[in-house]
Amino acid sequence: MTAPRYSREDIITAAGRLFAEHGYHGTSMRDLARVLGLHGSSLYSHVASKEDLLVAIVERGAALFQASADAAAARATDAGDRLLRLIRGHIDVVLDHLDETRTFLNEARALDEPERDRVIEHRNRYEQAFRDAIAAGVAEKRFAEGTDTTLASIFVLSILNAIDRWFAPTGRLDRQALAEAIYEAVVRGMAA
Amino acid sequence: MTAPRYSREDIITAAGRLFAEHGYHGTSMRDLARVLGLHGSSLYSHVASKEDLLVAIVERGAALFQASADAAAARATDAGDRLLRLIRGHIDVVLDHLDETRTFLNEARALDEPERDRVIEHRNRYEQAFRDAIAAGVAEKRFAEGTDTTLASIFVLSILNAIDRWFAPTGRLDRQALAEAIYEAVVRGMAA
Repeated sequence: MTAPRYSREDIITAAGRLFAEHGYHGTSMRDLARVLGLHGSSLYSHVASKEDLLVAIVERGAALFQASADAAAARATDAGDRLLRLIRGHIDVVLDHLDETRTFLNEARALDEPERDRVIEHRNRYEQAFRDAIAAGVAEKRFAEGTDTTLASIFVLSILNAIDRWFAPTGRLDRQALAEAIYEAVVRGMAA
Repeated sequence: MTAPRYSREDIITAAGRLFAEHGYHGTSMRDLARVLGLHGSSLYSHVASKEDLLVAIVERGAALFQASADAAAARATDAGDRLLRLIRGHIDVVLDHLDETRTFLNEARALDEPERDRVIEHRNRYEQAFRDAIAAGVAEKRFAEGTDTTLASIFVLSILNAIDRWFAPTGRLDRQALAEAIYEAVVRGMAA
């Protein structure tokens, strides 16, 4: 009998599932080995520690969000389109990569320095993309003059970060309709 | 040397702090005993298990939110005032009881049945108060005709449930200004 063969990437993916479902602290390396059908020793030939796995998953999440923001900036025709693309991209990242995003959003607090600071930097940079799009929309007179760009970006990200708790793709809204509903509500909601 | 004397309520409060900070799975009964300066055996004379503590904290959180919704319904002069009171009440519950609300919002998934179902019932009832206030405001022609009350209540609760991640009472907004900013953004954001 031979143990299954996994790449480091496979192991990170399996750990992401467990962290998202049971939390980082609720998952042991023994749980992970059991799910993969591995002995602990073969697990440790691929990864140094549970924190090593958390760092890897959080970095995947950060990279997915940043790629979405970069694509929105590269492809947008104006500030309104940029904000809508940011919203649509965020929805896709969350719904297509639930394990990575839940771990990125909820479990990163378990990281030690300097990894924890790196996550905060990632988030700040990503949030800046939303603030910039909103500020550009105000400058283009597409969004209401006097809009508090910081507050508006916090509100839209709060809505986006909660969608995995309630959105059912089989419901009356599909992803595109959800993105448009969030965009419309946020744009209408802006003002001095 | 005598061990400190604690009530069951004190122990629940201390457990809430640990669950909020490290997660339910990241907290052991040994951690709790250490924080309180107790032997494990005296801890178990007050509480049956770690899950018993989680149930108690989640019930505190649910009771706080429901009391806020009941007060809003009892005191409001119209639907707009009711929604503003719901928002202000939610902010107060979150900021005055961070440990209970974080545990209620983030750790309740660790509960087993039937406690888990009870939490879902609590949440549904609380969310219904927001939907009702929004529907009443539409009926009173105070909020836009054709508003999707379900979506509007999800958006306002998503914003409210994220405030503990960023709101600093010493910042440029105080609680009242925060409540008004959320209320205004949500009301403006409503439409067919």
